[in-house]
Amino acid sequence: MIETAVVGASGYSGAELVGLLATHPRAALRMVAGAASAGRRWEDLYPARAHLFRGEIQAFEAASLEGLDAVFLALPHGESASAAAELEGRVGRIIDLSGDLRLPDRHVYERWYGRDHPAPQLLGRAVYGLPELFGGDLEGAEIVACAGCYPTAVQLAAAPALGLPGAPSHVVASALSGTSGAGRKADLSLSFSEVFGNARPYRVGSHQHTPEMAMGLERHAGRGVQVTFVPHLIPIERGILATIVLTFDAAPDPAAVLDRYRRAYADAPFVRVLADRLPSVRAVAGTNVCEIAPVVDGGSLVVVAAIDNLLKGAAGQAVQAFNRSFGLPEAMGLPGGEGA
Amino acid sequence: MIETAVVGASGYSGAELVGLLATHPRAALRMVAGAASAGRRWEDLYPARAHLFRGEIQAFEAASLEGLDAVFLALPHGESASAAAELEGRVGRIIDLSGDLRLPDRHVYERWYGRDHPAPQLLGRAVYGLPELFGGDLEGAEIVACAGCYPTAVQLAAAPALGLPGAPSHVVASALSGTSGAGRKADLSLSFSEVFGNARPYRVGSHQHTPEMAMGLERHAGRGVQVTFVPHLIPIERGILATIVLTFDAAPDPAAVLDRYRRAYADAPFVRVLADRLPSVRAVAGTNVCEIAPVVDGGSLVVVAAIDNLLKGAAGQAVQAFNRSFGLPEAMGLPGGEGA
Amino acid sequence: MIETAVVGASGYSGAELVGLLATHPRAALRMVAGAASAGRRWEDLYPARAHLFRGEIQAFEAASLEGLDAVFLALPHGESASAAAELEGRVGRIIDLSGDLRLPDRHVYERWYGRDHPAPQLLGRAVYGLPELFGGDLEGAEIVACAGCYPTAVQLAAAPALGLPGAPSHVVASALSGTSGAGRKADLSLSFSEVFGNARPYRVGSHQHTPEMAMGLERHAGRGVQVTFVPHLIPIERGILATIVLTFDAAPDPAAVLDRYRRAYADAPFVRVLADRLPSVRAVAGTNVCEIAPVVDGGSLVVVAAIDNLLKGAAGQAVQAFNRSFGLPEAMGLPGGEGA
Amino acid sequence: MIETAVVGASGYSGAELVGLLATHPRAALRMVAGAASAGRRWEDLYPARAHLFRGEIQAFEAASLEGLDAVFLALPHGESASAAAELEGRVGRIIDLSGDLRLPDRHVYERWYGRDHPAPQLLGRAVYGLPELFGGDLEGAEIVACAGCYPTAVQLAAAPALGLPGAPSHVVASALSGTSGAGRKADLSLSFSEVFGNARPYRVGSHQHTPEMAMGLERHAGRGVQVTFVPHLIPIERGILATIVLTFDAAPDPAAVLDRYRRAYADAPFVRVLADRLPSVRAVAGTNVCEIAPVVDGGSLVVVAAIDNLLKGAAGQAVQAFNRSFGLPEAMGLPGGEGA
Repeated sequence: MIETAVVGASGYSGAELVGLLATHPRAALRMVAGAASAGRRWEDLYPARAHLFRGEIQAFEAASLEGLDAVFLALPHGESASAAAELEGRVGRIIDLSGDLRLPDRHVYERWYGRDHPAPQLLGRAVYGLPELFGGDLEGAEIVACAGCYPTAVQLAAAPALGLPGAPSHVVASALSGTSGAGRKADLSLSFSEVFGNARPYRVGSHQHTPEMAMGLERHAGRGVQVTFVPHLIPIERGILATIVLTFDAAPDPAAVLDRYRRAYADAPFVRVLADRLPSVRAVAGTNVCEIAPVVDGGSLVVVAAIDNLLKGAAGQAVQAFNRSFGLPEAMGLPGGEGA
Repeated sequence: MIETAVVGASGYSGAELVGLLATHPRAALRMVAGAASAGRRWEDLYPARAHLFRGEIQAFEAASLEGLDAVFLALPHGESASAAAELEGRVGRIIDLSGDLRLPDRHVYERWYGRDHPAPQLLGRAVYGLPELFGGDLEGAEIVACAGCYPTAVQLAAAPALGLPGAPSHVVASALSGTSGAGRKADLSLSFSEVFGNARPYRVGSHQHTPEMAMGLERHAGRGVQVTFVPHLIPIERGILATIVLTFDAAPDPAAVLDRYRRAYADAPFVRVLADRLPSVRAVAGTNVCEIAPVVDGGSLVVVAAIDNLLKGAAGQAVQAFNRSFGLPEAMGLPGGEGA
Repeated sequence: MIETAVVGASGYSGAELVGLLATHPRAALRMVAGAASAGRRWEDLYPARAHLFRGEIQAFEAASLEGLDAVFLALPHGESASAAAELEGRVGRIIDLSGDLRLPDRHVYERWYGRDHPAPQLLGRAVYGLPELFGGDLEGAEIVACAGCYPTAVQLAAAPALGLPGAPSHVVASALSGTSGAGRKADLSLSFSEVFGNARPYRVGSHQHTPEMAMGLERHAGRGVQVTFVPHLIPIERGILATIVLTFDAAPDPAAVLDRYRRAYADAPFVRVLADRLPSVRAVAGTNVCEIAPVVDGGSLVVVAAIDNLLKGAAGQAVQAFNRSFGLPEAMGLPGGEGA
Repeated sequence: MIETAVVGASGYSGAELVGLLATHPRAALRMVAGAASAGRRWEDLYPARAHLFRGEIQAFEAASLEGLDAVFLALPHGESASAAAELEGRVGRIIDLSGDLRLPDRHVYERWYGRDHPAPQLLGRAVYGLPELFGGDLEGAEIVACAGCYPTAVQLAAAPALGLPGAPSHVVASALSGTSGAGRKADLSLSFSEVFGNARPYRVGSHQHTPEMAMGLERHAGRGVQVTFVPHLIPIERGILATIVLTFDAAPDPAAVLDRYRRAYADAPFVRVLADRLPSVRAVAGTNVCEIAPVVDGGSLVVVAAIDNLLKGAAGQAVQAFNRSFGLPEAMGLPGGEGA
């Protein structure tokens, strides 16, 4: 068994991780750690999952995790890289769910995240964790910077299209997210009274996930890509729906588009390319699946993708990367996988 | 015109008050005050009501309200009585929406509210503001302690029943409330991610509104009354639904029950006694109406009442009490009134 | 392996059953049947569970189920008993989730359900399926009439209390349900636009689950019991929260009450008796657990219970009864069980 | 007083119209008509608005409306033009809220609406009702085809941008709508159990509002415009949020963009151009306001617009058009207007 721990186990993504690892056939969950919740019982915070795991949340100390095979970090941006720096060399693998280690360029990080980078020495050493596009990188990776929630949906939606003949270099992405994406916290703007009955965009032109999307798509396409990204908060708890539009000079052939998407994800156990219906949040909720439907509309290609932000957009992706890192079947221990 | 001000204008009840007073035929709203929001424009906090009122929120200072005819306090428990004590003698009338001045006995207050009373000298001087049951007290009242949201629904539902032949002295009340009842604040337990899809009781046996209900019902019935009160939080923003049960030794006659309710509220412009359907939150949302349906079920009388907690349970009730205090028609400036 | 089928597999309870049986260690799901959805792929109706089961929904024909070990009926009231009558003698066990076979007296059924009984010859032959209270009856039972959703929550909340010294015979029950309890159907009163932001009671004094609750509690207590039951619809998809009140002449001792509840459910793998917090829908969602908290409030005992209406209130309960019927561990294949 | 009637008064838009006309300073509401609800009391369908209007819903008969000054049609597509054809010549003005008379070309209608046009003789005779862009047309107009909900938000967001130097001819529009936009009806896909927790696109590339948007923007811009439109259903009852993106060759100047929007809507009482915050559904709910924020993001211009679909997207717009048609102040009787 692979010995693991989850740091940040009281947050929403961390709690999903705890459930996944506690039932993973090859992982043993040795410790759950947190900051504000240290000393509390994890199952009291998440009673609906008490049958999956029970244990006291420990204060995070790198020394107490020494020697574990893999440590998952489900911490807020800024805190995560600091923890990674403390753990480096002491544990076998670090799987980071935050945005701290995704962007190799410290200056890009500092501009978009609005803070000094807490551990610049780790930049460039982490492998970006988006298995469907860059899975090969993950074999044996020691530090994994898992892809963000929005970047997962947008990149999986856009990547095949960028290889179509005559594809543009500009991707327009509008995405909807539930409130769990903002984490478990007291915040007036996330209170029920404010979110109920509402829908609103936020951080237009300045969301920190934007350079990550461009970076991944550029690397995958092998050329420059510009992303216009508009995130919206809607009154659901979990889920992301991303709608991207690429504008072609000449209308692409719908059959060729569909074929390209199907081939691109033929071996991806968690991507479901749809031809007969459209993706929805409910169709993927509680699973690690990404549903994708490409629709040609005149000279534009509209692609819609849906994921569960806490699974394929966070904890599920992390376990998928963990599986790849340790050479296990990619879908092991994850809900929704086919084949594998 | 009657010169008024609202203190606590950035909260949910306060904002309703601002809208009501700004459009009231006989009131002039001279100032909106607050604490945390002082210096901000009120219409930036409530843009959907910018056509009703525009103005800067002032820091609360008793001196700056000197000479106004009526000041409404929409402040949290504890702060409200302190403000009332500062204002007393300086303004014509004080209409308090908090629970601070409702219970005449300081010790009862301190036991149920869990704090020292901030202005015990005012106790016993405030008139309890529940116009349908105690409207006569309000004529010329200088300090009004408006009834609470739950107590309004429960008392209006139960009061007529307590006068039926053979009526018991015990009222079982189960009530549902939306999140706005808890006020405008950052609180993890009120965050969308926690409230969505959930329903839960809270403060069973210890809710501070319980002695208020018993006090009002005892006074109205002229005898001892016990109330078992169980409040629940449900995922709606506004509204209260209260379901009360009284158990009789002999089944009451449905026609006599209905007749009693109709007569009890024949002159109440905001009470709608229903015989052909049941109350619902949506049927009263946005109005000052209380819908009530009494249903005989075997030896028990079930009575369901619905109100908008921010209107009939707070701001609307306050304006209704204000109208009575100044000798104006009870329904003036309030949505939902009939006759009057 | 025990060969099973689900009839009514496209409904919400039926779909839960499909997921549970498809992953049950000792069950093999051989067929899913339905009426309106016959010919469609089950996984197209429930894509978020496509990893659990895939297959075409068959039109229901008793002959095609011949010889199966157990058939689950997740059909609307009225249709279910007819299907049971057709299946009787052809299959090993019939596990019915509807209300058709719960009430042994045809006249009681016809009064509360408002229809002729479709198969009166089966009445009295079905075993009532509420394992925590009547588990012994289930060993080897050939026809099981699983307890309803509301009756499960109310009976589990009330049963221990009725055995307390001085316990009354009258139970006041107020319960909240999500919309999935009404089934998967087009109905204006269940449309999002009508349910959103609303809360409303329905069928006060006439809900068909009322005699079932009284029947079960009387049998368990060994004496007459009257139930006043008030159901409410609230804007959640799944979950039931029941709040019951029993009024004693002398206040019961809180410690003795808690002790009685703990002992009553000491061997029940799915009942969680709470002393330090209160039940909530989210704490049981997605599990077969029933959370129960008894709270003494003056001379009254308030007991709150929460279940997932589609699991402990329907499909989970059915599998739990199935396990007992076949002599399997009670919690096998069910989320949330302890021990077992 | 201008004598009016509402046909389709039991639907969500129709009910808003009833409330607006019943309180309009210059309108007298003489009749409310409907089909399925004929014979019922309007206030029983909409008890929260019983203080605004009370009356029996009549079956629609053109003869009974003879001689009225203005009749509003709030009927489903297809039914509306038939009613208009019957009313023509018998009433002073017809204000149609449906899509039947918006597109002057019958073949375009038939392609996008998927049905024969019910009254082609009226095509080309109706004036398109979007006062902010084409208000001059409305003076004295006898038949008004009010703009649709999505087209209102998208056109108001895009029109000023199309006049910027170097503006493209392609508009990418992604929009979110609440369920009331689909009308008051029983429909499984609109049931609470299906919509709750979900978000999904629909009719990608085929929504019937698409040609209307292009038509209006072309006419306003005086040149060809292509619109890629992706509508989404989200779990709110009312409101539309539209996010449009225009891609420029050279980044536009933010100050010039903002200035253009401000000037474009300087005289529009219901358009609020935002520079310091972003639009949201809650900021416009219950008003006839359209909030618009243009944000330059690299070479793209993102414009977000929010409206209440039942007011600015339907009933409010209709009254606004009615005001213009009769030479009344544009904002008369409408919530949210400034100036006027």
